[in-house]
Amino acid sequence: MSKLFAPRVSVEQVEEGTELAPKFDAHGLMPAVTTDAETGELLMHGYMNAEALEKTITTGEAHYYSRSRQALWHKGATSGLVQKVRELMIDDDQDCIWLKVDVQGGASCHVGYRSCFYRRVEEDGKLEFTETSKVFDPVEVYGDAPNPTKL
Amino acid sequence: MSKLFAPRVSVEQVEEGTELAPKFDAHGLMPAVTTDAETGELLMHGYMNAEALEKTITTGEAHYYSRSRQALWHKGATSGLVQKVRELMIDDDQDCIWLKVDVQGGASCHVGYRSCFYRRVEEDGKLEFTETSKVFDPVEVYGDAPNPTKL
Repeated sequence: MSKLFAPRVSVEQVEEGTELAPKFDAHGLMPAVTTDAETGELLMHGYMNAEALEKTITTGEAHYYSRSRQALWHKGATSGLVQKVRELMIDDDQDCIWLKVDVQGGASCHVGYRSCFYRRVEEDGKLEFTETSKVFDPVEVYGDAPNPTKL
Repeated sequence: MSKLFAPRVSVEQVEEGTELAPKFDAHGLMPAVTTDAETGELLMHGYMNAEALEKTITTGEAHYYSRSRQALWHKGATSGLVQKVRELMIDDDQDCIWLKVDVQGGASCHVGYRSCFYRRVEEDGKLEFTETSKVFDPVEVYGDAPNPTKL
């Protein structure tokens, strides 16, 4: 375990303490929520393992664990769209991380939109686009890399 | 399956279409990220099953699936702190939901803070409180209900 992490000894320590005592799930992961530090917009939802959390803390750049590639994922290593962490928050029971980031290039979504969340769910279940143009062309950036979206 | 949900037939439909074609994981769940519609602050991270998603859409109040209680969870049913959904967004591959909500009472965290994310992770791994006072007393609100935080 990372030297940055304390063992979990009590609910009080976890909820009201100042020690980082993260809890990873059965797969060694915790969800990571990433928002734009300027706008508050939700950019993406990913996962971190212990290594990704430690590297995010020590480098100040967002690292995730890619479940599809089963590997540490330094966000932006392929696209150049690195996420600089301005603030890193942890939740009450320390099993979820919130990253407030500055994104170089202004895009976080593999489809080319600024945010992964570019559609609103209406009351009838139809989706309404809230972003109308892409920030980049995914074919130019990712070439023929496999699309992470699975049916 | 809910009548609101379309079957997933292609990556293009899922990423660029206007049909709600959600993907739930092996446990029938998808992560749900909830932010304060006014401040953009991250309030909580939870999960929805198909029923929770449908009820959230049709009622306009946030419903989750409680993994600890293994039951549909109408947020606020116990505490009174109902979350009114102002906007509901779905991500590119439709396996994650973002709720922008108005919270009655202004608190979302079972510990009593406004947000579940009341501590910042510093570079040395220490936690710094960013909320200094609680919005409510959890003992008053929840009595002796079991604490959801697990070690």
